[in-house]
Amino acid sequence: MSDLDLPLSAPVIPNARDAVRALRASQIREVANAGFGVADVLPFWFGESDRVTPQFIRDAAAAALARGDTFYTHNLGIAPLRDALSRYVSALHGDTPAANIAVTSAGVNALMLAAQLVVGAGDRVVAVTPLWPNLVEIPKILGASVETVALGYGANGWALDLDRLLAALTPGTKLLMINSPNNPTGWVMTRAEQQAVLDHCRRHGIWIVADEVYERLYYGDTDARTAPSFLDLASRDERLICVNSFSKAWLMTGWRLGWMVAPRDLMDDLGKLVEYNTSCAPAFVQQAGIAAVEQGEPYTRRLVADLRASRDHLAAALSALPGVDVKAPHGAMYLFFSLPGAQKSLDLCKALVREAGLGLAPGSAFGPEGEGFVRWCYACDPARLDQGVERLASYLRQHAAR
Amino acid sequence: MSDLDLPLSAPVIPNARDAVRALRASQIREVANAGFGVADVLPFWFGESDRVTPQFIRDAAAAALARGDTFYTHNLGIAPLRDALSRYVSALHGDTPAANIAVTSAGVNALMLAAQLVVGAGDRVVAVTPLWPNLVEIPKILGASVETVALGYGANGWALDLDRLLAALTPGTKLLMINSPNNPTGWVMTRAEQQAVLDHCRRHGIWIVADEVYERLYYGDTDARTAPSFLDLASRDERLICVNSFSKAWLMTGWRLGWMVAPRDLMDDLGKLVEYNTSCAPAFVQQAGIAAVEQGEPYTRRLVADLRASRDHLAAALSALPGVDVKAPHGAMYLFFSLPGAQKSLDLCKALVREAGLGLAPGSAFGPEGEGFVRWCYACDPARLDQGVERLASYLRQHAAR
Repeated sequence: MSDLDLPLSAPVIPNARDAVRALRASQIREVANAGFGVADVLPFWFGESDRVTPQFIRDAAAAALARGDTFYTHNLGIAPLRDALSRYVSALHGDTPAANIAVTSAGVNALMLAAQLVVGAGDRVVAVTPLWPNLVEIPKILGASVETVALGYGANGWALDLDRLLAALTPGTKLLMINSPNNPTGWVMTRAEQQAVLDHCRRHGIWIVADEVYERLYYGDTDARTAPSFLDLASRDERLICVNSFSKAWLMTGWRLGWMVAPRDLMDDLGKLVEYNTSCAPAFVQQAGIAAVEQGEPYTRRLVADLRASRDHLAAALSALPGVDVKAPHGAMYLFFSLPGAQKSLDLCKALVREAGLGLAPGSAFGPEGEGFVRWCYACDPARLDQGVERLASYLRQHAAR
Repeated sequence: MSDLDLPLSAPVIPNARDAVRALRASQIREVANAGFGVADVLPFWFGESDRVTPQFIRDAAAAALARGDTFYTHNLGIAPLRDALSRYVSALHGDTPAANIAVTSAGVNALMLAAQLVVGAGDRVVAVTPLWPNLVEIPKILGASVETVALGYGANGWALDLDRLLAALTPGTKLLMINSPNNPTGWVMTRAEQQAVLDHCRRHGIWIVADEVYERLYYGDTDARTAPSFLDLASRDERLICVNSFSKAWLMTGWRLGWMVAPRDLMDDLGKLVEYNTSCAPAFVQQAGIAAVEQGEPYTRRLVADLRASRDHLAAALSALPGVDVKAPHGAMYLFFSLPGAQKSLDLCKALVREAGLGLAPGSAFGPEGEGFVRWCYACDPARLDQGVERLASYLRQHAAR
C-alpha cells in the first residue's frame, strides 16, 4: 500500500478529558488579554501587592543558595520550618504541634492536597461563594460534585445565611470548602458562625477545609492579630484542614510556599500525596519561610496597617462616584463593589481596560453569585489608587453622558 | 445533662479516603528510618547526586531575588524560559515551538498534571515496571486502575518484552506511562521499540506519557547527547506528553522545576490545571532554569562523563564480590543488581544500614517485579563508592561465614 492508498481521515485533535475541559478558565486573564496592546494599564486585577518581597526574606533564600541548600527535603517540609510554624500558629490559635503541620508548594497546592486526601469521584462538596475559583474547581478535577451556597449582599455588605449553609451540608456530604477572610468579597466569618458550622460538621462527619490565607489581613478588631479561625475552636485531630500561605502576610506570592494544619493521623497519607504532587517545596524557599515566620512580625503589622489605610482610602474615593455602591469589609485586600454596567461584569472590565486603562477583575470570575460586582485589589500605593479612581470616574462620566 | 451523662463513644480517628490510604509509602524511607541513630551511614538510596547545584545556576536565582523577581508568573511559565526550552528541546529532538512547552513545579508535578489532563475515575492505565513508584501511584489518586508490564531480566540485563506490552495496551486503554532511561533499572528503550509502541498507541488512540527526565544520562552511544526519545518520532500535536526535569542534567533536585512537551491544543486546559495545582513555579527558580538551559551544556557534558566513569567503577567493584550479579545499563544513574539475601530486599536493606552503615534502596520499592534486587545510586565521588563497596563486601563476608 502506497502512502496515497492510506485511508483519509480527519486529523485527530488531542483533547483533555471532559472534566478538565469543563473547568473554568480565568476570566481575569480574559480581561487581561483584552487589554493586550494597551500601553498604560493600571493593574488592580490580581490578588497581589505591588511590593517586592521584604529584603530579609530574599536574603535568607540567597544565603541558603550560597551555602548549597539545593537538595530534596522531607515531603512534609524541613523540621526547622515546621517547628517555626508550630510556634507561629500556636501563638495565634493555641497549641499546634509541628506534627500537625505540613509545608506545601503554595497555598493552592495545600488546597489540592487537602482535596486529594478526602474527596474522590462522586463525592459531594459544598463551597460558599462568591469565591476564588480554585476552591470550587479543585474537587471537580478529582471527580467530585460541588454545590455552592451564596453569601447575601445587604446593607452591611456580604453576609452568610447560616441556615442555608447548614441545610446544604446534608448528611453524606464529604467536605465543606470555606474561605474567610474571603476572596473576593472581604467577608469575614464570625466566631459564632464558625462554631455553628463546626458543630454541624462534627455531627455529620463532614470534613472542613478552611482556606485562611488572608487571616492576618484583618481589620475588624484593631487588637486582634488575626481573623477568627477554625483553629481557635477545633481540636487538632478532628476533620479539619486549615490551609495557609506565605503569599499575603509576607508578600511572597511568587515563591509558592504554603502550609496546612491537619490531623496527625493524616500525615503519613499526606506525605505520600506530597511525594506524588511536588515531592517537597524548594529547599532554599523553605529557609526563606523560616525567616518570614521568625522575623516577619513587625513587617506584617506595618503591612496590615498600610492595607487598612489603603482600604479606607479607596472606599472613600469610590463612594464619591455616582452609582458606585461600596462597603469596606473587614478582611483580605479587595473591594468588591457594584457600579453602573457591572450587570455584565466581564464586558465592563474588558471595556475598562481597553478604554480607560483600568485593570479590574469581573465579579463573574468568582461564580455567578459575583455578577454585578467588580473586584479591586487595593494592595498598592494610595497615589496609584487615586490614579485608578480618576480613570474610573472619567469612564463613568463618559458613559453616563452617552 | 452533665459531662458525665454524655454518651460514650470511641474517639473518631480522621482518615484519608481509601484510595489514598492504599497508595504505597516509600520503602526507601522505611529503610532510612531503620538506620535512624546509626552514626555513619553512606547514603546511596536516593536518586540524587551528592553535588551542590552549579554556581552559575544558583547565582542566576540570587540575582533574580536581588532585583525583586518575586511575583506570580504565567501559569505555563515565563516566556524567556519557554523560549529557551524550545531551543534546547528543538536542538535535541527536532522543532518544538514554545507553544508546545509548559514549565512545571518539578518533573513529578508534570507527571501529576499529565495524568490529570487525561485520566479520571475508572480509566485504565498501563505502566512498565520496575519503576519509580510515582508513575504507578499518581493515576490511582485520580481513581484510575493501573496494570503493570514487567521488564525481563536476562543475560543482557533488563529488557522489554514488546509483544507483552502491546498485548497489555488493549483498545480502550487510556494511557501508557513509560520511563526511559528507567529508574531503577537503567534500562533504555530502543528507537525501534518506541516506534512500535507509538504506532500501536496511535492505532488505538492511547495516550503516552513518557518520563524522559534521565534522557541526558545516557551512555549507550558516546556521540549521542541524549537517549532515544518519543519526541524524535512523534509529531508535536498527537497524544504524547513528554515529561522532563531540571533535577538530573543540572543537579537541581531541590529546586522542583520541570517541564513538559505536549500538544498545543492541550495548553489552555493545562494552564487551568497548573493554576489549580501550584499556579506557577517560583519566579526566580524559573530564572535559574534559563541559566541552566542556556549556559549549562558544558557542565552537563562533564557530569555525564563523570557519571559514566562512576558507573563503570562501581560495576567493576561490585562484580568482584561473590554472589553479586551486576550489569551496567546504558542510562540513568543507578545500578540495580542482585546479591545474596536480596530475595527479601527490604529486610536486606534494613540490615545493611543497621549493620554496615550502607544505605541502598530495596528493589521491592519499585514494585514486586523489582524484588531480588537493590538499587545503588552512583552519582557521587568514586572514593565514596569504594567505601560503600568495602562495607558491602564486609557484610557479605560476615553473613557467608554464619
